[in-house]
Amino acid sequence: MQEKKQRNEIKPEAEAVLNHPPRKNTQPMKKKNPQIGFKVIPLGGLGEIGKNFTIFECEDDIVIVDCGIKFPDGDMYGIDLVIPDFSYLDDKADRIRGLFITHGHEDHIGAIPYFIKKHAHVPIYGTRLTMGLLTNKLVEHGLEKKANLNVVNYRSVITVKGFSVEFVVTNHSIADSAALYIRCKGGKIFHTGDFKIDLTPVDSQQIDLHRIAQIGREGVDLLVADSTNAERKGYTPSESTVGESFLTLFASGSKKRIVVATFATNIHRIQQIFDAAKFYKRKVAISGRSMLNVIQVAKELKYLKFKDNIIVELKDINTHLPEQMVLLTTGSQGEPMSALSRMASGEHRQLKITKDDYVIISATPIPGNEKTVGNIISDLMKLGADVIYQGSSDVHVSGHACQEELKMIQALIKPRNFMPVHGEFRMLMKHAQLSKMMGVPEDHIFVLENGEVLEISGENAKVAGTVQSGVTLIDGLGIGDVGNIVLKDRKKLSEDGLFIVVATLNADGTVSGPDIVSRGFVYMRESEDLLNNAKEICAKVLKAHSDNTYDYNSIKNEIKTELEKFLYDKTKRRPMILPILMYLKK
Amino acid sequence: MQEKKQRNEIKPEAEAVLNHPPRKNTQPMKKKNPQIGFKVIPLGGLGEIGKNFTIFECEDDIVIVDCGIKFPDGDMYGIDLVIPDFSYLDDKADRIRGLFITHGHEDHIGAIPYFIKKHAHVPIYGTRLTMGLLTNKLVEHGLEKKANLNVVNYRSVITVKGFSVEFVVTNHSIADSAALYIRCKGGKIFHTGDFKIDLTPVDSQQIDLHRIAQIGREGVDLLVADSTNAERKGYTPSESTVGESFLTLFASGSKKRIVVATFATNIHRIQQIFDAAKFYKRKVAISGRSMLNVIQVAKELKYLKFKDNIIVELKDINTHLPEQMVLLTTGSQGEPMSALSRMASGEHRQLKITKDDYVIISATPIPGNEKTVGNIISDLMKLGADVIYQGSSDVHVSGHACQEELKMIQALIKPRNFMPVHGEFRMLMKHAQLSKMMGVPEDHIFVLENGEVLEISGENAKVAGTVQSGVTLIDGLGIGDVGNIVLKDRKKLSEDGLFIVVATLNADGTVSGPDIVSRGFVYMRESEDLLNNAKEICAKVLKAHSDNTYDYNSIKNEIKTELEKFLYDKTKRRPMILPILMYLKK
Repeated sequence: MQEKKQRNEIKPEAEAVLNHPPRKNTQPMKKKNPQIGFKVIPLGGLGEIGKNFTIFECEDDIVIVDCGIKFPDGDMYGIDLVIPDFSYLDDKADRIRGLFITHGHEDHIGAIPYFIKKHAHVPIYGTRLTMGLLTNKLVEHGLEKKANLNVVNYRSVITVKGFSVEFVVTNHSIADSAALYIRCKGGKIFHTGDFKIDLTPVDSQQIDLHRIAQIGREGVDLLVADSTNAERKGYTPSESTVGESFLTLFASGSKKRIVVATFATNIHRIQQIFDAAKFYKRKVAISGRSMLNVIQVAKELKYLKFKDNIIVELKDINTHLPEQMVLLTTGSQGEPMSALSRMASGEHRQLKITKDDYVIISATPIPGNEKTVGNIISDLMKLGADVIYQGSSDVHVSGHACQEELKMIQALIKPRNFMPVHGEFRMLMKHAQLSKMMGVPEDHIFVLENGEVLEISGENAKVAGTVQSGVTLIDGLGIGDVGNIVLKDRKKLSEDGLFIVVATLNADGTVSGPDIVSRGFVYMRESEDLLNNAKEICAKVLKAHSDNTYDYNSIKNEIKTELEKFLYDKTKRRPMILPILMYLKK
Repeated sequence: MQEKKQRNEIKPEAEAVLNHPPRKNTQPMKKKNPQIGFKVIPLGGLGEIGKNFTIFECEDDIVIVDCGIKFPDGDMYGIDLVIPDFSYLDDKADRIRGLFITHGHEDHIGAIPYFIKKHAHVPIYGTRLTMGLLTNKLVEHGLEKKANLNVVNYRSVITVKGFSVEFVVTNHSIADSAALYIRCKGGKIFHTGDFKIDLTPVDSQQIDLHRIAQIGREGVDLLVADSTNAERKGYTPSESTVGESFLTLFASGSKKRIVVATFATNIHRIQQIFDAAKFYKRKVAISGRSMLNVIQVAKELKYLKFKDNIIVELKDINTHLPEQMVLLTTGSQGEPMSALSRMASGEHRQLKITKDDYVIISATPIPGNEKTVGNIISDLMKLGADVIYQGSSDVHVSGHACQEELKMIQALIKPRNFMPVHGEFRMLMKHAQLSKMMGVPEDHIFVLENGEVLEISGENAKVAGTVQSGVTLIDGLGIGDVGNIVLKDRKKLSEDGLFIVVATLNADGTVSGPDIVSRGFVYMRESEDLLNNAKEICAKVLKAHSDNTYDYNSIKNEIKTELEKFLYDKTKRRPMILPILMYLKK
């Protein structure tokens, strides 16, 4: 992909040039509205972390920033993934000029395979590592040949009809992250992407404060900025502080095998683990499919630097002494099938955790994962391992800007209007407060809901209605075939199980049954009385209707009502009751 | 209850007197083992928060400390409560001398109604408020007359055959909490209960450090101590610091209605809210059943002090100006049906949250509740309210001791042996490390699992086997009738739903069906092809077996296998498949 697309790559320039192509001026409406503006429609990424998907419109042209997935909440029974509802774009396909990706995290690239199925023609732009990770993902979906992928350098300006987009260096918990400077005839937008300000980053590539200051001086109509840590005071520490912790911790665990669990995409973290391993003359083994994938891509693209001979295959790990090994693994979020989770439960085929292990969990649980991560820590300790985790040591830093950094961006950009994104509503509200403190007038700050349309035109900015938005649930191969009714049924089934009554009828009455089958309700073997009584109740209803056995609905409803009453009375439970009546073929 | 039981109450004494009654010495085994010791068996409360239930045995006598419930984890589909497995005591009922309760939280008293159903004869001891809350709970279960309840004063010594138990003042997030000094011929035990060291408590009743020091000088064989905050450095701040925050916050919200959500049982917190309301001349309304119950009990027992005329009925709340009201409510943990949750979703009948509300969430989410609490905060903000929560202000302090306090107890008690309790395994491990730092030899520190038996006899201490332990699941009226198979079915049903095939057969073949009913799988209306194909597959299997239609099991298995294959292939889902065959009555 890299080679083939090289021709689309625009060379970096010392100064970005704003290059508006000539516009076709064919629409009559423009006469009525001489002031051209632009619209921003966040179709995801507000109110909850993830599924980022933001639309920018100016006249005929549409560009999109990011296209992420969200992992399902606990009440989305059986759902694998949640993607944005793309339907707003259904009748606008020919107006979409480009999809611009800020960085390679799942909540920014994960839904692209589903987007491509509808809009394969749309060119996709991102920095080198972002595109490397995306290519990897598309290969898994067999879509790599369908996609129009373009690698972009920082400070390059991509012009797609009426929009031009410049990629600006930022820091984040993945390498090669970018902010986007988006210009169109209607105005100028600065979108931070996910970011922090790291003045001593591992790859020495500081956030491009010079360019951001310059952009601020050019006059930005709208700042769109990451709110994840808007509730946190102060500054997020530099990623390089974690490297210092690793050096200290590797010394403490010098007589043991060191196991480090972290996010597969945190390339800088992984580099620092390799560096510490090299310093202490240890070999490194890698466990977990995503860790292997990402390390391979990052090594090929030279974002990770280590000598090949430092690597030991996982299967050969026991041929080395514990104190000569570092094991790098996934599972820092307690994911049930991850390598770390299997080690903790003693189910990992190649790796047994013992008192000779020194485990570092280099991550903080994402909200919702606290319990699972806590259990894994306890389980590892039960196996005798030393376990180092957040709180006991500085083994993790966030990838998102805290309040002082957010204020810094406001100070540099000095936006006319501000829209906080990426975060729960309370974080967006906090970010709005910060912006107000920094001088943006309250009526120029927009805390939107997904689907709301922000219209900015010259001095005017307003919320102008809403468009179709929401989520599409992915379950197995099905895209959007699971909705509220199906989820409600799954919820009900999960709570008190299922109670099925079947009977076969003919014109004269019941010819077989009623029989009862239940699952997830009570132990059938131990509840014979209950089941027999339930059966009698059903038989009675059927008998009462023997003069009109074809009155399908009333028989079913009556059975349901009677059984609900009876079962609730006896058990205080409300299983799903399914009466199934069959009729004899004439 | 208070009046009736007064006769059982032992008056406080300046110094506790150890009063061993004469022991029947009838068991021959004692000759073989002249050194009498004691056993401790934690049957709950280790490895996870909650369901505290600890057995102490010396010769013929058994006493129990606490008897709590645990709320179900996310994977306990439909379960209401989790109580300890009492079966270890089944054949020992006549040896149980007493149940001693350290304080009135659910995880210490919640399972008592279920315990009483088996062991009504066992006298139960606790301080006044603890017994008041317990009585309330027993009334709900219709068990208050069956129970043998005894109110105890601090420094009193209760002697029950071979055991004597003294209640010692501690501080915690509920009034009237106690540590227990347990003595028997076999040795002396100090059990902290849940505690913190609060030197400026709201009720001026400091933890009884003098008595604890004295007990330490008497020589303690085993310290059993609360590990909840063993991972946290420093000291837990005094509860009275929250009162100071309330004064400041009430001033900030002076033009609005103030809504405070907190734990119903945190009497001192509630007192401080009443005090702040009084100071700012506001009235107080109370929302939430448990809040009403606890406030009533605590007021009657004089643990809460306020004038009746400060109270406004909830239904009259709108007859007062917002700036004259404080609303005290439950729901600080985001419980789905709680008052606060209904206010946030706009479903509360009497209370509408608007921009005239200033909501203080005076609590920290218990692990696992972070997301729900976060959503409620966002929802309240969307309604326009100011929301103050942990992080943005000091609106909550923990009720559990941090590391310096835990070290203080070790310093005062100087135990020969130490057993950390109440906390997840990693917290117990951390607490063990602290104890080692404080001079307890490593081989005298016991991090147990529930059900393990710790045997202490003179200088010797060892883990001597395990006994039956575990949990009993409560679902509706059922106690223990839901187990792993039922939960597994509920889990499976929750993931991909259900696919039922019914057919009626006679000796010659299929006379009705096959019909298909599915729930929680796909939208049936939109998946007609899938269902028709599935039906054909079943019809084919049935036809193939028309020579032997009574071969029930193989027909069912074949339908299951074929459908599993087909459905997984088409949808990548694995619903529960239930083939139901009916046979015509001859």
